[in-house]
Amino acid sequence: MATLALAHWATDLTPSSLPAPILQAALRSLYNYTGCAIAGSNHPTTLKAHTALAPFSPNSSPSHLLGQPSSTVSAPLAALLNGIASHVHDYDDTHLATIIHPTGPVASALLSYATHTSPSQPISGADLLTVLAAGIEAACKLGLAVWPTHYSTGWHITSTTGSIGAAVAVGKLMKLPARQLAHAIGLAATQVTGLREMFGSDCKSLHVGRAAESGFMAAVLAQEGFTSSTEALEAKRGWCRVVVGGGEEGERAVERLGELVGELGREWEVEKNAFKPFPCGIVCHAAIDGCVQLHEDGVEVGEIERVEARVHPLVMELTAKKEPKDGLEAKFSVFHGAAVGLLFGKAGPAEYADEVVRNAEVVEVREKIEAKADEGIAADEAHLKVHLAGGRVVVKHVQHAVGSLDRPMTDEQLEWKFVDQVGLVLGEAKAKKISDLAWGIADSPDVAAVISAI
Amino acid sequence: MATLALAHWATDLTPSSLPAPILQAALRSLYNYTGCAIAGSNHPTTLKAHTALAPFSPNSSPSHLLGQPSSTVSAPLAALLNGIASHVHDYDDTHLATIIHPTGPVASALLSYATHTSPSQPISGADLLTVLAAGIEAACKLGLAVWPTHYSTGWHITSTTGSIGAAVAVGKLMKLPARQLAHAIGLAATQVTGLREMFGSDCKSLHVGRAAESGFMAAVLAQEGFTSSTEALEAKRGWCRVVVGGGEEGERAVERLGELVGELGREWEVEKNAFKPFPCGIVCHAAIDGCVQLHEDGVEVGEIERVEARVHPLVMELTAKKEPKDGLEAKFSVFHGAAVGLLFGKAGPAEYADEVVRNAEVVEVREKIEAKADEGIAADEAHLKVHLAGGRVVVKHVQHAVGSLDRPMTDEQLEWKFVDQVGLVLGEAKAKKISDLAWGIADSPDVAAVISAI
Repeated sequence: MATLALAHWATDLTPSSLPAPILQAALRSLYNYTGCAIAGSNHPTTLKAHTALAPFSPNSSPSHLLGQPSSTVSAPLAALLNGIASHVHDYDDTHLATIIHPTGPVASALLSYATHTSPSQPISGADLLTVLAAGIEAACKLGLAVWPTHYSTGWHITSTTGSIGAAVAVGKLMKLPARQLAHAIGLAATQVTGLREMFGSDCKSLHVGRAAESGFMAAVLAQEGFTSSTEALEAKRGWCRVVVGGGEEGERAVERLGELVGELGREWEVEKNAFKPFPCGIVCHAAIDGCVQLHEDGVEVGEIERVEARVHPLVMELTAKKEPKDGLEAKFSVFHGAAVGLLFGKAGPAEYADEVVRNAEVVEVREKIEAKADEGIAADEAHLKVHLAGGRVVVKHVQHAVGSLDRPMTDEQLEWKFVDQVGLVLGEAKAKKISDLAWGIADSPDVAAVISAI
Repeated sequence: MATLALAHWATDLTPSSLPAPILQAALRSLYNYTGCAIAGSNHPTTLKAHTALAPFSPNSSPSHLLGQPSSTVSAPLAALLNGIASHVHDYDDTHLATIIHPTGPVASALLSYATHTSPSQPISGADLLTVLAAGIEAACKLGLAVWPTHYSTGWHITSTTGSIGAAVAVGKLMKLPARQLAHAIGLAATQVTGLREMFGSDCKSLHVGRAAESGFMAAVLAQEGFTSSTEALEAKRGWCRVVVGGGEEGERAVERLGELVGELGREWEVEKNAFKPFPCGIVCHAAIDGCVQLHEDGVEVGEIERVEARVHPLVMELTAKKEPKDGLEAKFSVFHGAAVGLLFGKAGPAEYADEVVRNAEVVEVREKIEAKADEGIAADEAHLKVHLAGGRVVVKHVQHAVGSLDRPMTDEQLEWKFVDQVGLVLGEAKAKKISDLAWGIADSPDVAAVISAI
């Protein structure tokens, strides 16, 4: 209750309820502050920050919001908003070893910077993909160094590592020398955004947006000569130790970081980036996958009397919501995902809309599904047993869920996902056109031209 | 070396050095990202953030930089730059029990918001001081809850608590209902900026600026209905536990937080806010104070043969730099502070300028000073013994340094400090005029008019 108690106390406070000595103490603090702020206003540190950050405005350097071509905002705000948008459906990507969603923070910062600098500094598709890979590697290697303590302590590992990945990517795009790029890494590392407590609220996606914007800002500041520490990650009080709470775990994290940095370029993390086939927690993907397959096999929901699912124990721990009330809750319901899979043969964002979650037919199918945790079942595995009218039984075994490392999404499946979700915003015809543009970015001599058409 | 190694690896990476499957993996990640970002671009979460943050531009809502009346920037950037400026000389204020410098983040956010909303919503001096007090209380109570583990782990406690203080202050100024203010607290709490590793670089002051801007943004988002968690501070994975690394210390922190919130309005922290008389580490203030007093007593540096100082052990641990090379290093040199105190009778920002630090006369006095740690001496105490030509000895005992809680800066001393440091930027006559304006803010019916004249 501390948060609400603090909020209530502050809300209720009035000037007349404040003792006079407290008002006087506040005045002395403000007075002293004012002198300090004026005295520091022409300090080189302040001037570097001003020079670096003031040029970004919606007018002098507009940047592009994906899917919203009529809106232009400042480049840092574009990084923030694109970052939010990319994560808000929980449908992005997953580096499975760390459950980092790496592309959101890095690409959001990059695309904003690329459109900002265009057309004076055209950036080729090959260059863009190279710096994207560098940023994703940085974020995932850092995640591996601090996993799992960092996550179990309560940090949203996507954003806490993503700002650093974004700084590496944008800094590299700016062609910063290595020492300046190290300062950019430090400037991003010191901005540790993202508590897991915020999951289930708007704030979860803000983490991704803020990580993009923090990394963007870090690179822009470093370019102006703004300094941090060139030992920001490994120092005694550096990122790696601090974000696992120090102690022995901190020592282990720094040691692992050294090893992971040593294997950069030999062992690639971007290759292990998986794509979500369904916009919900990854643990229930195998069960949904099986239900989609049953639909494709011709199983009619009208004939289903009961479905028995045997799943990995985490499915029941994390997604056992039997009667979700809205789309957000449905993301934590293996029953909902399975039901729409059986009913519609798909489980995309449309199937997680509030009205679908509350639809009577969907509710009816949901109620026929039973799920049991089974220690003998792998995280990406599911066994389904469907009891049909007349005593018939159909069995489906999913050994590896679609989107897992053993059964990655194909380019065709990625394209289906793209057109399906983009179509909800822009219509199917435009979605197909934009899909072609997005694939074609690899060969573009000036990616900004492509991005601004998206 | 991990930071520089990562930077070098990224800098050296070229498209042609990337294996084709890695470029393809990067393209798949970018393609999938693009679809997700478009699909999320019209989601309510994204739209709320867009609506909340887009209005802030240097044109549509300019905000004021203290001491730089010709510069106008967007309100969030003003919060950031004023925050940097207020802390960059290490000359601000100190809540001694937590070594938080509380006013920088809170006031920087507040003044930006106040000038942004003017003249449509005039804010009185009494209201401004009330919300400032609320923000300072919030930051310091949170600091007390997590002290000392949070700081010893490596966090810059001024900025990690300051963003929350700023959100409380701005949110209260906006008259957010308590529940929305709780969301603002959560939105600020999830942005944990500031590693101590950055001390000694530009980045240290950035922490204060970013805390101000994060708190500002948190309040603006909450006003638009953007949600976080209303248990952001005390939850199992909330701020309080996470920023001390969890475990038993986390439980203790949450317990203390509950007690501290319970005493809000009865036990005030803003009253315990101390002001720095010298722009350097607080541990050496007693020794400098003694030297300034010796100058005032008429001791001539030309006659000094040797100074013996007995000081608290921390002075030697933190500020024993005998031959500082520049102003920044001089902040960590009790010898420099003592030397300019003896020589000039003051130790303000002018006495920490690089050229003063390297001045031959200053160097000569510095070399005559010896300092020894003494376990029997308190943190705000110093014993000085000056050996003069001809065998005379002068002794000075400072029981409580100026600026300590036992000997707080008087209003006159605060004013001297204000005019001295502001005069370096704007000249003495203007500094005196602005000092009067700054004291007078308490009685102003519209503080924005005052701020924009500062």
